[in-house]
Amino acid sequence: MMRLPQEPNRNGGIRTPSPRSRNQSQFHSTVSVQKNRRFNILILIFRFAAFCFSLASAIFMFANSHGGGSDSLRWYHFDAFRFVAIAAGIVALYSLFEIGASVWEISRGTTVLPEVVQVWFDFGHDQVFAYMLLSADSAGTALARTLRDRDTCTANNAFCVQSDISVALGFAGFMFLSFSSLLSGFRVVCFILNGSRFHM
Amino acid sequence: MMRLPQEPNRNGGIRTPSPRSRNQSQFHSTVSVQKNRRFNILILIFRFAAFCFSLASAIFMFANSHGGGSDSLRWYHFDAFRFVAIAAGIVALYSLFEIGASVWEISRGTTVLPEVVQVWFDFGHDQVFAYMLLSADSAGTALARTLRDRDTCTANNAFCVQSDISVALGFAGFMFLSFSSLLSGFRVVCFILNGSRFHM
Repeated sequence: MMRLPQEPNRNGGIRTPSPRSRNQSQFHSTVSVQKNRRFNILILIFRFAAFCFSLASAIFMFANSHGGGSDSLRWYHFDAFRFVAIAAGIVALYSLFEIGASVWEISRGTTVLPEVVQVWFDFGHDQVFAYMLLSADSAGTALARTLRDRDTCTANNAFCVQSDISVALGFAGFMFLSFSSLLSGFRVVCFILNGSRFHM
Repeated sequence: MMRLPQEPNRNGGIRTPSPRSRNQSQFHSTVSVQKNRRFNILILIFRFAAFCFSLASAIFMFANSHGGGSDSLRWYHFDAFRFVAIAAGIVALYSLFEIGASVWEISRGTTVLPEVVQVWFDFGHDQVFAYMLLSADSAGTALARTLRDRDTCTANNAFCVQSDISVALGFAGFMFLSFSSLLSGFRVVCFILNGSRFHM
């Protein structure tokens, strides 16, 4: 490798290209890159967990059709369950994209989109999708409770159990998504303050 | 004006306690304090809006009792509406406390709690309460929709309309609370990076 990784120049005024300062900044930059790598791996873990849980939630809800004939129950007959299924599906797709972007960044050292777009894109979507998923699952919980009161569940218990599982998985997905939203928020502020996504 | 407007001292390495640098740091501090003041006033506005909307939401829900005799409808008969009322009440109380803390900080220049506790307290509670309020209002929306399907609303329309208003006010409160959560998150990161809540 011939490239010299150099510190993003923070004091901006004086540049002294002496060998000593180059060594020093090289060391500093290596530390910074390693820290950034560990941070990215943490984000990747959270995103992977969010992906698994939201995918499972979406699958459970999309497959939630029980009974036949006139007393058949389908997930798409209920607004809130539609919301749960679609929100979980969207979050699963988004998490898949973000896993790809994270792996790309860890392996190549650059972001997929330009850096300023990437940090804002991640943070904005994390926030909005976390709120969306929470909202969907709360609505799903309220509907599931109402169904239990209405004796729908005594007639067809499998439908209710499967809805409950899907909603619970959705809440777990939300938890991990909100953790990644905190981390990507941190990256945004690092970017605003330092002009780089590296937190140092 | 005798002060010399000078660039904020960014490289932080060398300190010369000459009168000139003292002037400079005084000026720097004045700019920083003014910026911080404007930031605090923005937070105060958001908190005040969150307070108004969540208080209105809580009042509308707590007062939501219609009809008499056997077909009377009370908000506390429904889990989701209880959740809406209590969440809105908690957020209103919390916002009131935070308005007080903000006014204190703007007028006296110090935080009520020690600075490190204050920034984390604000951010943590903003996040948790924003999620709680959104969750409550989503559950309330789902229940309100179910009530409409069940013909409860044709019998007693005022109850449903009042619930809808309360939930809508709660969503507005959530919006302002999430804005203040973004700002207080920014303050946390400033605190981590600079060791002070001032953002520069």
